[in-house]
Amino acid sequence: MNNHKFFNRNSLINFSTSVFKYFKIPKKDAVLAAQVLDYSDIRGIDSHGVARLHTYFDMLELGRINPNPTIRIIREKKSIATVNGDNGLGLVVGPKAHQIAMDKAKDYGSGFISVSNTNHYGSAGYYSEKSLKNNQISWSMTNSTKLVAPIRGKEKMLGTNPIAIAFPGHKEPPIVIDLATSAAAYGKIEIANRKNTTIPKGWSINKDGENTTNPKEMIEGGSLLPIGSFEEIGGHKGYCLASMVDILCCVLSKANWGPFAPPFALQQETPKIKVGKGIGHFFGVMEIDGFIDVLEFKKEIDQWIKVFRNTKPINNEKKVLIPGDPERIAMKFRSKKGIPLIKPVIKDLIDISNKTGIEPPDGIEPPT
Amino acid sequence: MNNHKFFNRNSLINFSTSVFKYFKIPKKDAVLAAQVLDYSDIRGIDSHGVARLHTYFDMLELGRINPNPTIRIIREKKSIATVNGDNGLGLVVGPKAHQIAMDKAKDYGSGFISVSNTNHYGSAGYYSEKSLKNNQISWSMTNSTKLVAPIRGKEKMLGTNPIAIAFPGHKEPPIVIDLATSAAAYGKIEIANRKNTTIPKGWSINKDGENTTNPKEMIEGGSLLPIGSFEEIGGHKGYCLASMVDILCCVLSKANWGPFAPPFALQQETPKIKVGKGIGHFFGVMEIDGFIDVLEFKKEIDQWIKVFRNTKPINNEKKVLIPGDPERIAMKFRSKKGIPLIKPVIKDLIDISNKTGIEPPDGIEPPT
Repeated sequence: MNNHKFFNRNSLINFSTSVFKYFKIPKKDAVLAAQVLDYSDIRGIDSHGVARLHTYFDMLELGRINPNPTIRIIREKKSIATVNGDNGLGLVVGPKAHQIAMDKAKDYGSGFISVSNTNHYGSAGYYSEKSLKNNQISWSMTNSTKLVAPIRGKEKMLGTNPIAIAFPGHKEPPIVIDLATSAAAYGKIEIANRKNTTIPKGWSINKDGENTTNPKEMIEGGSLLPIGSFEEIGGHKGYCLASMVDILCCVLSKANWGPFAPPFALQQETPKIKVGKGIGHFFGVMEIDGFIDVLEFKKEIDQWIKVFRNTKPINNEKKVLIPGDPERIAMKFRSKKGIPLIKPVIKDLIDISNKTGIEPPDGIEPPT
Repeated sequence: MNNHKFFNRNSLINFSTSVFKYFKIPKKDAVLAAQVLDYSDIRGIDSHGVARLHTYFDMLELGRINPNPTIRIIREKKSIATVNGDNGLGLVVGPKAHQIAMDKAKDYGSGFISVSNTNHYGSAGYYSEKSLKNNQISWSMTNSTKLVAPIRGKEKMLGTNPIAIAFPGHKEPPIVIDLATSAAAYGKIEIANRKNTTIPKGWSINKDGENTTNPKEMIEGGSLLPIGSFEEIGGHKGYCLASMVDILCCVLSKANWGPFAPPFALQQETPKIKVGKGIGHFFGVMEIDGFIDVLEFKKEIDQWIKVFRNTKPINNEKKVLIPGDPERIAMKFRSKKGIPLIKPVIKDLIDISNKTGIEPPDGIEPPT
């Protein structure tokens, strides 16, 4: 607990908003982008919240992201379309493209949108949860910088390409599925490296393609493994899922697929070849009401949740979880206590504050 | 190689067709059902071809499947609908419901169908490949009898719930993704048990929830594990994916979800509680043309395939595969040599022949 400090949630949202506005991002978009970051911070998805603000800051400062994009449909057929994000902030392009998908679903029952020329869009789950208030089910996917090796390969070819979808409960909370198609997140490798600990076998291979439990070996030319880790126990399935996300997000929309995805962080190498524009997202929205009465659906989801919670546990102290539970536990805690930030993140925010003159968020103190 | 004999492909198709017709299934439907089985046999997906014919036979003989169903839309909203399969053969309900999804996609750009009151529909990939000729991308999913434990649980709660999707190449063959959301297929456990060999750690747990490499321990009250196998290396992600399939196929359509899915094979226990009708499928079809020029898409898929095939391999003898490669290799071999069947399957076919008076398929000889 010595390693982090708590911050006021709203003060972090305001800080992010001011940073985005500093780069002449329109106020409404700046607020939206800050809300997408807050979605992750309040739910404990620390890798996708203000911890990333310095990266967005860098990209904006270098002019690599367009602060005022014209986000537009470039091709469509009733319920489906391709959207060009005009190299805007993913935190703005994502919600706007997803809104188009939700609107189409309202008109046609379903709405599917592939998005090119965009950037990192925050947590995939943000979009899936967003549409629950409309009684819509939303898939949300995005590609990202290469980190994952296909099974049998020894080089990074795919991003951690997440898939999210959510289903609303009635009295129960929603089922929120949000998973990277890699066995583990890159952030976890970084943490193990910082702490000088080992990582589980199945997370990564080294530059020669050998399984490694040394995080440094992954970082220095190694790769993450897809879900399933090894061919013998289904690792090819994770590779297939990451490929599906890659194609839906990027080949359909003409974004940079596979190893050609541009980097998000500055220290990552930029691919020499471009096969499209920016990275890609994919949103798929369906109206529950077109399949089943909405209330009936929600009540049945409640039953589903109850039945799965009551699965006989291996260990009585560790009950079977419902997708979304870990984030709900974090949200309950953070809603009261505030958002815990670790020293390197605090340092990043202070650096932004120093460079922009924006007042730092409440509770901030220079790390000692 | 002593353990199997080769059969003429068409003679197997004709045999299956005759068996279905024997139960007064209309000729067109019988041919369709036999084609769905053949899709698996020619591609080496042995668990889903004629090896299953005796089970369909049993279900039809016991009157558990309706040979002449009225398959109808019971609720819809333009591009989406729920279809009631009237307890028909899944090999007939599946293709007909999928056709509705393809028709809707033609009209609206996308078509999404959830299906209740249906039965085992063959290989999920059949549907995804089927729509390629229409320049459509199809998701195909189904639930199935419980076999998989959620992470932290020690009882079967979910089927091996597959997800399939396919993308057409231009000069290259299509990318065909078809994966069960379990770490391994139940059929592999059965084979290991018959051969008295061990299974890899990560495939299953025993009745007490302990990891086991003894196939017998899985069969006697144990469970399969979802893709990812263990919580530490992402097993919860496999559980999430299986849950997604379960809800889309069953909760949306009012079929029997989770542990309530009715059994397919006679020796499996029938759940005491019903929460819906039959099992469920889910089909989602999208017109490529609504996103991107079809030829341009296919050419880019060719590029994707080339780039991924050229991934640096760990072992030069084992190149990185493209989803669908193993089935293509099997298809090439079987198109020439015929379909290899193992003795228990041959025995099953002879049994059907004896009971129905239908002439057995060519090449058949009683196992010695």
